[in-house]
Amino acid sequence: MPNPTAAMLVIGDEILSGRTHDSNTHHLAGVLTEAGIDLREARVVSDDADDIIAAVKALSARYDHVFTSGGIGPTHDDITADAVAAAMGAPIGVREDARAILAAHYEKSGVELNAARLRMARIPEGARLIDNPVSAAPGFIIDNVHVMAGVPAIFKAMVASVVPGLTGGAPLLSRNIDVYRGEGDIAAPLSDLAARYPMLSFGSYPFQRGGAYCTNVVTRGQDAAALDAALAEMQEIFG
Amino acid sequence: MPNPTAAMLVIGDEILSGRTHDSNTHHLAGVLTEAGIDLREARVVSDDADDIIAAVKALSARYDHVFTSGGIGPTHDDITADAVAAAMGAPIGVREDARAILAAHYEKSGVELNAARLRMARIPEGARLIDNPVSAAPGFIIDNVHVMAGVPAIFKAMVASVVPGLTGGAPLLSRNIDVYRGEGDIAAPLSDLAARYPMLSFGSYPFQRGGAYCTNVVTRGQDAAALDAALAEMQEIFG
Repeated sequence: MPNPTAAMLVIGDEILSGRTHDSNTHHLAGVLTEAGIDLREARVVSDDADDIIAAVKALSARYDHVFTSGGIGPTHDDITADAVAAAMGAPIGVREDARAILAAHYEKSGVELNAARLRMARIPEGARLIDNPVSAAPGFIIDNVHVMAGVPAIFKAMVASVVPGLTGGAPLLSRNIDVYRGEGDIAAPLSDLAARYPMLSFGSYPFQRGGAYCTNVVTRGQDAAALDAALAEMQEIFG
Repeated sequence: MPNPTAAMLVIGDEILSGRTHDSNTHHLAGVLTEAGIDLREARVVSDDADDIIAAVKALSARYDHVFTSGGIGPTHDDITADAVAAAMGAPIGVREDARAILAAHYEKSGVELNAARLRMARIPEGARLIDNPVSAAPGFIIDNVHVMAGVPAIFKAMVASVVPGLTGGAPLLSRNIDVYRGEGDIAAPLSDLAARYPMLSFGSYPFQRGGAYCTNVVTRGQDAAALDAALAEMQEIFG
């Protein structure tokens, strides 16, 4: 059975303007690979409702799981929850369970749960909350869309609480070898190898060491025995 | 007149598997912002011809400029040139001008221009070459699609040679201020401010300092006088 598929949707002007470097996609990619869920696509869109709605609709229709990051804070540019609700055709309003979480958190820290903070309790009908152990304001899951915070520490915590609950396939395993030749020298034997192991994928990534052209060759797949056999051949051919 | 728009398309299994952290999008975002070209969307797809073709078609139809990175090397998984040619409906083959560049480069370094390396001279009909000062193998421009290398040093060099030739709008300028209050405390006055400066956009990004919740407030736009006025108000309100 093929692995479940997933897409990442990063939401935020700050990524597209170059202010902020997105690190959440890379983190999610590693976690999903270990969980046996294939991350097939990632997108970054701005804080624009139409753009978010279009991307959520396209990705949730195409992939088994969608993960979003960003835009669930208290300020006017945080429009992800409303846009996701619109994309999924769900009504949205302040939900009592989310409001109670925020009220308890802010009471403990002596901070007012004002109208702005209350926006973080806007959760689509039918969604399940995702725990936020850092700053309380929850994410949520509606259908196959997981809506999470953009702040990396919170995103990581939410990924850690969500991904173990998903049914993964066989983890994507990999083996790799550094070859002290340029990509162009190993392309033909590598292509032969790829043809002989159709259940694996092969990638080659050039780098330089001491001024010499080198290549990191990676093979990926779910079949550990095939990977080990391919690695032995790679060592034989390129070693 | 509104600024020209752009999209970035990163191509490569190694990004989606978590092996490699994409840094090219962040670099391009900064360069385009300075050039007055609005980066509206970024996507990452795998080394799959159908996925690349679909993304190139969608993005080149929607935005003024598309920039791709990755998949133009000599190995079997480097399929970007052929996929972009298919997306744009252009024939593709080894082109003499590109072959000559590779031949000169490899002759100088005493390396054979073998069949694998010759794949890097596959350029769609009608495309203009993009110079590669690092390792010779050129990128190319076909219609509004700029096809560039994934290796960050080469990607940067290609961006530097391509972007100055594009007609930009007014650069996107920004002003920012660190506020020693949480986002929830400044959301209401910030929303008022945004309403009074409709020509600017306002974003807020939480961070912690010494255990206290703080917010970096950024305003962006093309009108320097309006930005300065908004910054003065921000200092007055939040300072």
